[in-house]
Amino acid sequence: MLIQRLTIIGVGLIGGSLARALKQENVCGEIVGCGRNTVNLQHAIDLGVIDRYDTHPANAASGADMVIVAVPLGTMSQIFAAIRETLVPHAIITDVGSAKATVVADARQHLGQFFPHFVPAHPIAGTEKSGVAASFAQLFENHRVVLTPLSETDSRAVALVTTMWEKAGALVSQMSVEHHDKMLAATSHLPHLLAYSLVNTLAKMGDRAEIFSLAGGGFRDFTRIASSDPHMWRDICLANKDAILKALKHFNNDLAEVAFALSKGDSQQIESIFTSAKTARDKFCG
Amino acid sequence: MLIQRLTIIGVGLIGGSLARALKQENVCGEIVGCGRNTVNLQHAIDLGVIDRYDTHPANAASGADMVIVAVPLGTMSQIFAAIRETLVPHAIITDVGSAKATVVADARQHLGQFFPHFVPAHPIAGTEKSGVAASFAQLFENHRVVLTPLSETDSRAVALVTTMWEKAGALVSQMSVEHHDKMLAATSHLPHLLAYSLVNTLAKMGDRAEIFSLAGGGFRDFTRIASSDPHMWRDICLANKDAILKALKHFNNDLAEVAFALSKGDSQQIESIFTSAKTARDKFCG
Repeated sequence: MLIQRLTIIGVGLIGGSLARALKQENVCGEIVGCGRNTVNLQHAIDLGVIDRYDTHPANAASGADMVIVAVPLGTMSQIFAAIRETLVPHAIITDVGSAKATVVADARQHLGQFFPHFVPAHPIAGTEKSGVAASFAQLFENHRVVLTPLSETDSRAVALVTTMWEKAGALVSQMSVEHHDKMLAATSHLPHLLAYSLVNTLAKMGDRAEIFSLAGGGFRDFTRIASSDPHMWRDICLANKDAILKALKHFNNDLAEVAFALSKGDSQQIESIFTSAKTARDKFCG
Repeated sequence: MLIQRLTIIGVGLIGGSLARALKQENVCGEIVGCGRNTVNLQHAIDLGVIDRYDTHPANAASGADMVIVAVPLGTMSQIFAAIRETLVPHAIITDVGSAKATVVADARQHLGQFFPHFVPAHPIAGTEKSGVAASFAQLFENHRVVLTPLSETDSRAVALVTTMWEKAGALVSQMSVEHHDKMLAATSHLPHLLAYSLVNTLAKMGDRAEIFSLAGGGFRDFTRIASSDPHMWRDICLANKDAILKALKHFNNDLAEVAFALSKGDSQQIESIFTSAKTARDKFCG
């Protein structure tokens, strides 16, 4: 058994899907869930996602060989502080946060002597849905999981977290916290900001029912991420705001160039901008 | 038979899908295709999409009861000019352009006495793919088709175009040219501009392969429309540039507000912006 007792704090889409995948692969002896909502936790038991639950993080983490903290970024520090006292000496702690700098800072501050056992991780997978009901075992299959270990991070802890994600079907790699946060600001956080913002712009334009009824499939795809959990995304944007604002600045400059070409009716420039975008996307996003 | 001879100029995703749907419903006696690429036209015959083809618009339109012009917006005027001489007196002409003001102006200028027989139409359907190979009969099912007839447009022509689209499964409605162009600038043209622009911003950030490999499903959906045909979208953006630039201004103002809230770390404001967007999208795009 790779992990005798696994505790997942936050049994939502990510935590629930990981639990399902690990159960399917027979990786854990027991999976303990933790959260504030007992209805949700009972539902997770009924779905066979977890074996039992405890609403107190300290109790849930007690005796666990691995603790996965899968809560919104703004809640990380209080979880770390709560579990520190009950962790067994060999316990490994990891997270699934979409921005890494604040989680690492929180862990450094609140995990004390356990900090070298903390492996910062980010599975790049998800849907616009949330909650354990939306979870499924294949969510991470062939998706990337980025680990951002620090110099003091225990290499055996990194190895175990790597193996766990590989058992869930993921492709695990490592990079620095700063590089991760810069890249994800551009590929994920900024797009969410743009999608949320555009939907609001449209909603203000007049008859909402009419406006959205005139939106085709392209718009639906484009704004799908604006249906993501606002609380979770508020935390992500605040946690990574400097990198996001920097990416936004680049985006605004490029967009202003497109707008200028359009205002001049510069047909050649517009087509060249669109063509290079299509070429890049077709090549890399297939 | 609703339409004895139908000519489709531009046998791509839209023209090809409409031909397939009408054949399936047994609506036309004969479907004549027209385009510049004989390989594509022969492929359309092989696929059973059209019955025969002619690469000369004037020849293809000769004797047709209805002519559907499904070419990029920048090519509309030359097609109208080319077919005018060979149209039979009762011929009805319609189009599928994503912006209506320039098409109407082109038709008014080049269709002469046939202008009252011209029904401006826009099927709000499509995918990021193009070409007859990507066409399918169900493309328009339960999708909206907006007609923007003018005061001089023949009501029997409007009725026939309406019936034709209804046979293809579409939900047909009418609005003014100006209203259509304003709405579609916001729901379709601006999102395409943003998606093309964002992909370029990312492509400039460094190692492209690495950046795009860190993009999840959300990014893939968000930028799907950036894989749309650059030539077609260049024409659409130029044709509707005033409305698009106006929508972009609204978007930029709203986005600046989000960025300001983020820079201040205004957690409440950020969550409220995200929540109202999610609420609107969930309600209307479900």
